[in-house]
Amino acid sequence: MDVQGYLAESAARVERFLDESLPAVDEPPARLHAAMRHLLFPGGKRLRPALAFAGAEAVGAAPERALPIAGAVELVHTYSLVHDDLPCMDDDDERRGLPTVHVAFGEATAVLAGDALLTEAFAVLALADESRVAGVIGDLAEAAGSRELVGGQHDDLSFDSQAATPESVESVHRRKSAALIAASVVGGARLGGGDAERLGRLRRFGLQVGVAFQIADDVLDAGDDEPCSLVSHLGVEGARRRAEDLLESALAEIEDLGEPAEALRELARFAVRRDR
Amino acid sequence: MDVQGYLAESAARVERFLDESLPAVDEPPARLHAAMRHLLFPGGKRLRPALAFAGAEAVGAAPERALPIAGAVELVHTYSLVHDDLPCMDDDDERRGLPTVHVAFGEATAVLAGDALLTEAFAVLALADESRVAGVIGDLAEAAGSRELVGGQHDDLSFDSQAATPESVESVHRRKSAALIAASVVGGARLGGGDAERLGRLRRFGLQVGVAFQIADDVLDAGDDEPCSLVSHLGVEGARRRAEDLLESALAEIEDLGEPAEALRELARFAVRRDR
Repeated sequence: MDVQGYLAESAARVERFLDESLPAVDEPPARLHAAMRHLLFPGGKRLRPALAFAGAEAVGAAPERALPIAGAVELVHTYSLVHDDLPCMDDDDERRGLPTVHVAFGEATAVLAGDALLTEAFAVLALADESRVAGVIGDLAEAAGSRELVGGQHDDLSFDSQAATPESVESVHRRKSAALIAASVVGGARLGGGDAERLGRLRRFGLQVGVAFQIADDVLDAGDDEPCSLVSHLGVEGARRRAEDLLESALAEIEDLGEPAEALRELARFAVRRDR
Repeated sequence: MDVQGYLAESAARVERFLDESLPAVDEPPARLHAAMRHLLFPGGKRLRPALAFAGAEAVGAAPERALPIAGAVELVHTYSLVHDDLPCMDDDDERRGLPTVHVAFGEATAVLAGDALLTEAFAVLALADESRVAGVIGDLAEAAGSRELVGGQHDDLSFDSQAATPESVESVHRRKSAALIAASVVGGARLGGGDAERLGRLRRFGLQVGVAFQIADDVLDAGDDEPCSLVSHLGVEGARRRAEDLLESALAEIEDLGEPAEALRELARFAVRRDR
């Protein structure tokens, strides 16, 4: 399977959906609507939407069934980056080679644009008009809430690398990154009609891939002196090995799903072994 | 009807629900969870939850049916205040006689606590496990999004009082305040099983009451030199008259609903005529 081709097709599909779902850039308040789109387009790899599409395929459904959750997880991911970049948080001026939202539009508009992107995630799901949508919204709200994404970000900001252990690093990774990645896969599978047993497997798969994905970041960023990094505890080789172990265990969870889960497997390998 | 008694009963009901729904204050990350509760308890008048309960009653349902939306609108209202108070927004140090969240917990935690409160609003709705819940979530996401609440806040921040007209002031009031008030009433009525015709009336009622509620604030704050205030355009007496006209027109919308809508009427009168 051509994983780059799958990612490109997923990106085109979700971008069309998001472009149509969001208020147009010239609709008032135009400055706010432009700020909402600033980091969303052109965006990044669109890994989470691709995992949502592959989640639907893994339970035998067409990838398009996952569109609402694919759009929603990209909106949540984007909002979290906009807020993470704020001066009071990570204080980053650039992301993906462009000025961050608060640099381009000011801090107040960046806070509001993030708020609106998060809200829009639930709006696109609610519009899906699907019997299964309440469960998907519940999963997403849990993954994005104070026990998961926001809690992970909170603990990352005040991370004490002296007192840290490999377990405390992975706890941040699981909450800050893996919860939303698992919600992408499971949301796609839920909209695709997957049963509880398969949703459970896909959730465990998503959490393990998500932690391994974040460890891959730790390895790629080794030397950046990130306080919350598995590399500080296990070294580059040890961290790489831990990511591979998680990947193997994740793949074992979905072995039974056979050929329909092939895209999911390839995306998982890509997420953990990518060189950027 | 004893409107103060109705408000007190509504407050007790929604506070119990919110206290049970939110992570406990000592659950990690404890600092984040404490920050989420800081402005939520003891909170304000709980007018929006009361309107949600009264919305359910207005269509003949028990007020308890509206609990999920009553909790959700109070969470959205609270998140919007936490973010509004930030240094990059209104930069307020005190609210309801207490330090604002960013003064008590720091700016980063205040941003994250607001994010988590907004997310929790959708979580409590999704858990409602109700066939009508997707519609309620859609209404709330629209009312809280860039076309309404966040857009109103955006325009309020950069409000140009020189170029303003009564219409542009009311446009901010409608988006920043009235949309969420309408979503409270309509959400309660929707969970209570109201039909489309009554939901339409209640929405128009909620928007008019919401604008009048905000004009009542303009009157109470006259002299505070708020750039976005109807008092600067119509004077105190003119603004008061406009609020009464809106109230009258709102009450006419729900005249047909008879006795079950009595709490709604009393709450509307209170919202517009209160002296604080």
